[in-house]
Amino acid sequence: MNRPTLDDATLLARLRELGEVGRGADGRLTRLAGSAADGAGRDLVAGWMRAAGLAVTIDAVGNLIGLWQGSAPVGAAPVMIGSHIDTVIDAGIYDGCYGVLAGLAVIEALQAAGTRLARPVALAAFTNEEGVRFAPDMLGSLVYAGGMAPEEALAIRGTDGVTLREALAAIGYAGEAAPGFLRPHAYLELHIEQGPVLEHEGIAIGAVDRLQGISWQSFRLSGEANHAGTTPMALRRDAGLVAAQAIAFLREAIAPRGGTTLATVGTLSLDPGAINVIPGTARFTLDLRDPDEARLAAAEQRFATALRQLAEAEGVTVETTRLARFAPVLFDAGLVARIEASAARRKLSCRRITSGAGHDAQMLARICPAAMIFVPSQGGISHNPREFTSPRQLADGAAVLLDGVAALAAPPGPAGAAQGGS
Amino acid sequence: MNRPTLDDATLLARLRELGEVGRGADGRLTRLAGSAADGAGRDLVAGWMRAAGLAVTIDAVGNLIGLWQGSAPVGAAPVMIGSHIDTVIDAGIYDGCYGVLAGLAVIEALQAAGTRLARPVALAAFTNEEGVRFAPDMLGSLVYAGGMAPEEALAIRGTDGVTLREALAAIGYAGEAAPGFLRPHAYLELHIEQGPVLEHEGIAIGAVDRLQGISWQSFRLSGEANHAGTTPMALRRDAGLVAAQAIAFLREAIAPRGGTTLATVGTLSLDPGAINVIPGTARFTLDLRDPDEARLAAAEQRFATALRQLAEAEGVTVETTRLARFAPVLFDAGLVARIEASAARRKLSCRRITSGAGHDAQMLARICPAAMIFVPSQGGISHNPREFTSPRQLADGAAVLLDGVAALAAPPGPAGAAQGGS
Repeated sequence: MNRPTLDDATLLARLRELGEVGRGADGRLTRLAGSAADGAGRDLVAGWMRAAGLAVTIDAVGNLIGLWQGSAPVGAAPVMIGSHIDTVIDAGIYDGCYGVLAGLAVIEALQAAGTRLARPVALAAFTNEEGVRFAPDMLGSLVYAGGMAPEEALAIRGTDGVTLREALAAIGYAGEAAPGFLRPHAYLELHIEQGPVLEHEGIAIGAVDRLQGISWQSFRLSGEANHAGTTPMALRRDAGLVAAQAIAFLREAIAPRGGTTLATVGTLSLDPGAINVIPGTARFTLDLRDPDEARLAAAEQRFATALRQLAEAEGVTVETTRLARFAPVLFDAGLVARIEASAARRKLSCRRITSGAGHDAQMLARICPAAMIFVPSQGGISHNPREFTSPRQLADGAAVLLDGVAALAAPPGPAGAAQGGS
Repeated sequence: MNRPTLDDATLLARLRELGEVGRGADGRLTRLAGSAADGAGRDLVAGWMRAAGLAVTIDAVGNLIGLWQGSAPVGAAPVMIGSHIDTVIDAGIYDGCYGVLAGLAVIEALQAAGTRLARPVALAAFTNEEGVRFAPDMLGSLVYAGGMAPEEALAIRGTDGVTLREALAAIGYAGEAAPGFLRPHAYLELHIEQGPVLEHEGIAIGAVDRLQGISWQSFRLSGEANHAGTTPMALRRDAGLVAAQAIAFLREAIAPRGGTTLATVGTLSLDPGAINVIPGTARFTLDLRDPDEARLAAAEQRFATALRQLAEAEGVTVETTRLARFAPVLFDAGLVARIEASAARRKLSCRRITSGAGHDAQMLARICPAAMIFVPSQGGISHNPREFTSPRQLADGAAVLLDGVAALAAPPGPAGAAQGGS
């Protein structure tokens, strides 16, 4: 049996080829879930899967899964890898696609090396991970993990009013299989970091041991609009001021530099919105994240308290709406250790890292041991055509994925095995 | 000779009648400068002027001036009173109109008492005081006072693209007289406070001794947009945060409660404006006011310095644009004293007060001694259909105006005089 060797050139070529599917005349790449471009991208990937001898199945919410049974006993739970191929608007070519195509490269490398499997390997491209067209995000994997009923998901209307059911039918990906029909033994997802940490620290591999909890809220502050020139400061009920004080407090006391809690006020608007009118209304959103549930909940509490106190001092009232709340996810310690061991063996710098963004892996973690492998993102940029990871970095990540799959699906033993190499 | 008696009932009736000119089917009152409604309002007021025997003149920028020569020697500089009759959108009925119609009531009262004038009395309704349709505001009185050439003013395009020249011609108020053709001996303007101070303190009359300076600026802060979940706090360049910190600093250090400086951030927007994206750009405006020029300039300086420091700490750049800057105006001490004396004589509570808003009087102050008389605004509300001042309060203000005009135009002496009464 040979040491498996990854075909990095083909991986790169396929990333670029898939990256042209959905590229408009204006040069922008957009492959929204369930769109014609998404259909064409799925066809391309499914074609590669079939050419590699995988049995391709589409489930009822369009999740695309290719199974390499090989010599594995029927009924053995598969090792699952993959990610997603839908994109945001004006996207890069790596987000999600890297994990799916690297997964295919891993399977082909193991096949070429004559690997005898103890477990099948399943490669998944999950539906609507990005959440741009249909909400919520990670929709396909959420349903796959039993977190939402298929019928409920299929009835969701996208931003253009079309339901997921209609969209999948239109592109020929309304499948028969029940989501979750294959319960994985483990799930490993390779992905670009989409943040600046690995590049900033010069690290090659991120062993993702957890995924942050996320709290999204919106606030509406109501004071009193008034003339900017004739209203003494002492008689004002300035909703914009209270919003500003609360935002300053966030950085000072809740999410200081160097802490684990992240706080972002991405939207803020004042009404009536005239240069010489004290704002009677202010609206803003708050995105809070922390890998620790207790700290995340404490951050929400402390902000609510501070906001209430600031508002009272100015005669302003507060109305809070919760938009989303996901608890942190702890990935599987054993899988994380395997990732670190692989990196060490290959002399690749490695550190544990928290995923700041949501991923399909956080859904799969509900039904099996799961973990992620990160590679650096240049400038931390993602969701942007300038998204970039070098061929060397892509190859290193794929090698670590190969090691993980080989260890889980074809562990060393008398019946033949494969040791990740190349 | 009789003691002059104001006809308060007619004043009130005329206020209400003028308040119906430009009231739409939706019940909203709007009489923008140079509009058909403004034309109709002018016709109504000019008609009342002529009925009172005033010689009506329209100047080249549409200022409407009625002159009561009476027995005054030809060539004596007139005592000028008045205000404006154009309104904002969805306006109240008192702003500006009260000063013009009370001025007419004062003239009629002096006429009815057989007053022998030492000086003529001129009643003015200045064009485009509000600045809603044509900028800047106080346009007619600005030109009257020599602050802008008539041709320049006539060429100004309004918000609908029509020039002032075209608008005045369309309503028949493109006059022949040169603006400023009558140089006043003094100017007294009666107006609602448009702020909460007089009502808050239970004071009947405001002797307006100064008008605040005003500074309008806009700021554009540029940082870097980034993923809210994957960007550590230490690596952020959050333009929204810097804006918030600067706004909080304003209240804390530049315009605290109880001070003379007023600071208002009435507009604020973030880009790209998504819940999970760190705002790379923030834009906001700052309205600063103070009755003291040195303090106003210092406030501008201190804010600029603080903003620069806050921005540097976050890796954000600042671009500043000056939108408007008017120095404070000191009204005539002698006229202010007359107002206080009149209130005392009539046993009306009175206090000196700074005008927070701009008025035609600040332009007339450039060419003659000028002052203003304020009456309370309920709730401090103006530029709003809920604008209200009670009939008693309106009558008290008109009485103080009467005293002022009588003292200036028909001072006590051997040739006969009038002492304000009623």
